[in-house]
This record gives sequence, structure tokens and C-alpha cells, in this order.
Amino acid sequence: MGDFNLTVILDAIRRSTGGLSRVELAQIVGLSPQTISNISRRLLDQNLIVEAGKEGSGPGKPRTILRLNPDGMYAVGVHLDPAVITFVVLDLVGDVVKHSRIATPAGPPPVVIAAIADEIKSLIRESGVDAGRIAGLGVAAPGPIDLDEGAVVDPPLLSGWHRVHLRDALAEATGLETLVDKDVTSAAVAETWAGGASGTGSFIFMYMGTGIGCGIVMNDEVVRGTSGNAGEIGHIIVDPGGPACDCGLNGCVKSSAIPQVLVSAAEEQGVIDGGRQGSDGPEVQESFARLCDAADAGDERALAIIDRSAVLVSRAVAVVTNTLDVERVVFGGPFWGRLASRYLDLVPPLLASNSAANSIHGIEVVGTGVGEDVGAIGAACLVLEHTLAPRAQRLLLEG
Amino acid sequence: MGDFNLTVILDAIRRSTGGLSRVELAQIVGLSPQTISNISRRLLDQNLIVEAGKEGSGPGKPRTILRLNPDGMYAVGVHLDPAVITFVVLDLVGDVVKHSRIATPAGPPPVVIAAIADEIKSLIRESGVDAGRIAGLGVAAPGPIDLDEGAVVDPPLLSGWHRVHLRDALAEATGLETLVDKDVTSAAVAETWAGGASGTGSFIFMYMGTGIGCGIVMNDEVVRGTSGNAGEIGHIIVDPGGPACDCGLNGCVKSSAIPQVLVSAAEEQGVIDGGRQGSDGPEVQESFARLCDAADAGDERALAIIDRSAVLVSRAVAVVTNTLDVERVVFGGPFWGRLASRYLDLVPPLLASNSAANSIHGIEVVGTGVGEDVGAIGAACLVLEHTLAPRAQRLLLEG
Repeated sequence: MGDFNLTVILDAIRRSTGGLSRVELAQIVGLSPQTISNISRRLLDQNLIVEAGKEGSGPGKPRTILRLNPDGMYAVGVHLDPAVITFVVLDLVGDVVKHSRIATPAGPPPVVIAAIADEIKSLIRESGVDAGRIAGLGVAAPGPIDLDEGAVVDPPLLSGWHRVHLRDALAEATGLETLVDKDVTSAAVAETWAGGASGTGSFIFMYMGTGIGCGIVMNDEVVRGTSGNAGEIGHIIVDPGGPACDCGLNGCVKSSAIPQVLVSAAEEQGVIDGGRQGSDGPEVQESFARLCDAADAGDERALAIIDRSAVLVSRAVAVVTNTLDVERVVFGGPFWGRLASRYLDLVPPLLASNSAANSIHGIEVVGTGVGEDVGAIGAACLVLEHTLAPRAQRLLLEG
Repeated sequence: MGDFNLTVILDAIRRSTGGLSRVELAQIVGLSPQTISNISRRLLDQNLIVEAGKEGSGPGKPRTILRLNPDGMYAVGVHLDPAVITFVVLDLVGDVVKHSRIATPAGPPPVVIAAIADEIKSLIRESGVDAGRIAGLGVAAPGPIDLDEGAVVDPPLLSGWHRVHLRDALAEATGLETLVDKDVTSAAVAETWAGGASGTGSFIFMYMGTGIGCGIVMNDEVVRGTSGNAGEIGHIIVDPGGPACDCGLNGCVKSSAIPQVLVSAAEEQGVIDGGRQGSDGPEVQESFARLCDAADAGDERALAIIDRSAVLVSRAVAVVTNTLDVERVVFGGPFWGRLASRYLDLVPPLLASNSAANSIHGIEVVGTGVGEDVGAIGAACLVLEHTLAPRAQRLLLEG
């Protein structure tokens, strides 16, 4: 796109709820009416905006409203979770045009990458969008990631992924410009784009996936840290007398509160049958669904397992909210939906009682409105942001 | 000061190491030579800058270098710690003109506030600076604080301070415009102003005081959180089998690693005698010094207590660095000096082994170069920043 003024104007139009007239645009961005007029013409020619009716009932001439053209540009988002891979095609206003999911293949990285590339091609075909209008591919991956190399570096719950150059591999396989970011950060980005009021200000996004991590937004800015790996909270100790962790201590989030641990507890107690094939993502997700079914059916032991996890997760949340002094906690991710009702009852009072700033301000606890595809939607938003936002996105990766 | 261009120019001069010529200034801030010339004249008239010799050996006319005038403005900084109150007078370039310390009086808040005001007046008198050139008073206080009210709100280690309006009380008692900020944040601010290379980029400042907290700087910006209370890490669990905490759990930083706990352990083991009068700040500081003397003299049990605290503190540090993905940990605060040599040996390898991003980048561990007065210096820097920085400091308090 290459034109700073053009992206400033596009960004102003995007942030407005009902579109803007050229006069309003000139006032907001501080450019001359002539410049606004010239750039609007270019944006109309490129189909990135549309003229959307007139407005104004006063004595003056009614003003033509400029809005983003949803079909002017698309982005593809992929979220690689150890259990499930989610795909979306997003239009320019951030609406999902098409989405799909596949269980994460059990094979080595090249097999998984090939499956991702195939699914992207099918999804684009089925979506019916003009491939020439796809700005790029965003990928949300579990950390640690190496932003410089666009690589996934030994994520604890995705075995065999040792410094896999995901960005270059997918760019080559799909022909799309590709960005990689951490899964929890992508989820936070989605919340800022599509989450409405809960995506503003200072908040953490508690990502409830195969692992538990958090995305961080302070004063409307996503916090990625020095290498894009912010949000690692798996070794916060939440259960001092709890199970041993691979770090040598006891009762970390990772050893006491992730879905795999809940499922194992349910199996040991006979709440669900122990016929699970392995500890890989899809098996855990299936068993987790059965645990939640049991809880929904009133099984006290199943409920106790879930409620206990809410207590433990709230302790990790309190550590992060006390460190960062945020105003809101947004929960989401693939395992969130089944946990939501219990967590939304239990976490707020637990968090309030552990909040160092409780006498100064409360902390809002909400579930994301973005839905289960939040990681993939965030990944696609990265592409839109990179293409449209007027500021340099130096921390993102380009393939 | 009220003139944006003027503060931009002053800030550019401040950030330069050796001063700037008018030509360089025009290039850096993007204002016309005429504007630079006019504003320089005003700054010279106000004694905020000085002309500091000529530079240039080429064929052109040698350029006059503009530098901050150290004596052009002063700020007073106070750090209220439960054990000790530290006072500094800082000049415009951030050098300490005069400093002093008093043991924190044991009385109720009005007694402490009166003592602070008296000491400020003495210090200003003894410093010999022109009182008319003092821009204001910055106060670093233990959290939680209420930024709107400029109040200290029930800090856990300062008993009897229930919503004390410290800002207004000190503004009235001293006649100085007053700002209040959290102690750990002030320390981080001092590091960004006076810490050299270790005060740049993304780092946490581990404040080792009567309590342990951290200041946060991400991409050269201090992170205060939504109410100025960021940096509360006292309830991070670091010793799963450790002592009971007032929060109901075991082995929090607050119940296992703060000086008071180390001193109690030393007393129980007979490393130091148990004749301490109470658990108030000054008594703890004195006993802590005796514990460190014993360690320095080779007492194995004393060394073991200090080394164990390094292990526990490094766990808390790892929680924060994993959450924020910073590049550096800067230790400081009143109890740091005696801990430094053991901690600088022990913490780096412990932190590396607990770092989620260890395969991507290392984390530097350093002691602050700002010294023991870091909290008070940071408080004075708040005033300079508020007066000089071109951006609105909306989170600071004005009395």
C-alpha cells in the first residue's frame, strides 16, 4: 500500500462505527479537503471503500458517507493448536466469510504443514472470494516462537516441533504473504479488533487451550515483549500442595489446571472411562467434552474437578492482574465454552479477594464475544492490521 | 511551562549526551531554524540551558552547543519506605545535589508527614539551592495508592496508613507542587533517567525493600497499569512447601522471601540474637544488617538463608519475565546492596533455567547503578519528567 496518508484515512474509516463523510475525515485526520478527496478517489478505485448513501437533514448539501468495502480485501487466519487447527477467511471489516476446523494430524511437522496448506486452499475455493484480493495469511502458533525466523521452537505441548520454520513453509506452500505470531497474542489482537468494549483499555486475554496462556493489552496496545513471547504463565504455582511439574516444583498451572490434567483426574475417579488412546490434543479434547457432559448432567465429582480448576486458574489470573494492574480479564479459547458458566460464577469473587488494588478498582471478568475461532480470527486480523495500520508493525513477521 | 515546542526542544537536549547545536536540533525535532533560534533564546533567558562552547573543525562556522543548565531547575524527591525515608534534591541533569535519610518515625501518619516536611525544608536549606528554582516535590510511596486522590491506601507493611492523602498534606506543608507515584514505579523511572544502558528497552526493576515489588518498563515506557498499581508480586508462590501466608496459601514471596522473614529465620537458628524490639522497619533493617555481617564473616547458616532467598526470589522473577518477555532484570532498593554479590552469582543461572524464551534470548541480570537512593531519585525524576517531557503525564498526581 505504501502510502502513509492513505492508511491513516483507511484506519479512521475503519475505527468509525457508521462510516465518515469527507468533511469529517478532514477534521479527524487533519489533512486538507483536496488531499482527502484525492485519496478517497484512489480508495474507491481500489474498491477498498464504498460510498454508502447520503447523510444530513439540515440546510447544507447532504454528505456522502464513506465506509470500508467488506469485499475490498480479505485475510486468511490459521490457528495451530495441539488439538485442533482452525481456519478462517476474514473480510476487510473483520467478519468471518468462511471457517473450518481439522483435528491436528498426529504426524511430524511437514505432514501438519501440508494439511494446513491443503485446507487453506480448499477454504479459499469454498469461500468464493477473489484470490487476488487476499492480502495474506496470518498464523497463530503456540510459543515459544522465534519472530526473526518465523519459527515454532519446541512448544511444550506440540511434540517434535523443534525450530520449525512455519512462516516460510506456509508462504511457499500457499503463495500468500505470511505472518506468524503467538497464539495468545493473536487472541488478544482479535479481541481488540472484534471484541467491542471488552477489547479496549488494559486487559489480559486468558487463553484456555490445550495449554493456558495469556495475551496482554495495555492502554489499547498489544504487549508482545522483547521477542514476541510474552504471556507464558504455565509455571505460575497455583496449588502449593499439588502435582509435581516437569520444572521440578509442584502445583504449576501446567501440572494442575490444564485440560489434560482435569481429564486424567476424571479418569482416575471413574467420572469418565479411561479408554483414552493417548495424551495428544484430539483425545484430550474428546475426553474433556465427556467430563463437561458429566458435569452438565449433575455429576458432583465432575463439577468438583471443574470448580477446583476455576480456583486454581483464578490464582494464576490474580498473579498477572496484580503484576499488571489491568481493568479486565477476558476468557476465551477452544476449551472456554464448556467452562464458561462455572468460571463466570466462581472467578470474579476469587479474583476480587486476591486483588492488591481491590480497594481502588474492581476487575471485570468476561468471556470473549469473538467465539471459539478467536485465535484464527486474530491471526487474520494481524494481516489486516499489517496491511492497513498506519504504524510500522516491526514485530510481525513477513514471509 | 506550557509550550509544547519548548518542551520538545528541551527534551531533545536532555536526551543528547553532549548537547546539541541549533542546526542539529532543527534536524532532530523538525522545526524551522527560526523557531529553534527563538525558543533557544527563551530557554537561555530562563537559564534552563547554557551555551557550552563551540564545536566543528571543518571549513564552516563552528557551532555553538546547547546543553541543559544543571542549576536551571531542581526537584525534590522523597521515598517513604516502612523502614527508612530517603530525601534527595536533584538538579536539572538528574544529579543528586544533596541527600539525607531518617528512620521512619513509629507514630501515626500525621507525625510521619510532619517529619517528612521538616526534613524537606532542612534539606533544601542545607543544599543551598535557590528555592524559587525548585519545580516540585515527587513522593514514592508503597502501594496500593489512589492516583486520583494522591492517597496511600492500606499498604500491607505500613500499619495505620488507611487512605492517607499524602499528596495534599505534603503540598500544604511544603508549599511545593507535589506528585505521588508507587515506590517500585519510581525506581523504574530513576533507572530510565539515570541508569544508562540498563535503563533502556524492556526490563523489570526488582525493588528489594521492606517488601519486594517490581517496576515495569516495556519498550522504554514505564507501565503503571490502569490505576498506577502495577508491580504487586508479593503473593507469587515461590516455595510450595513454605510458610503460611496471610492470603491463606503457603510460600508466597511475602511469607518466604522478604527481609523480615529472613531475619526471623536467622533469629530462630541462633545466627543472630533474637533481641529485636519489634517487626517494624528500622528494627528489621538493623537485624538484616547483622545477618549479612554473619554471612560475610563466613557463617554457613547465614549464607544458606541468603542463598535460599535468592532461589525463591528468582522464581518470582521468572514468573514476571515469562509473563512479560523482558530482556533484563535490574535489582535495587534499600536491601539490595548487601544481597548483591550472592544474588548476582545465583539468580542468572536459576532464571535462565526457568525462562520460557531461553532458546530465543537470554535475560541480563544487573544491579542498578543508581544506588540506594533510587526510589527518592525516581520520585524527583517524576517532577522533572512532568515539567519537561513533551507528552501529557496524565497518570501523575498534582497537588
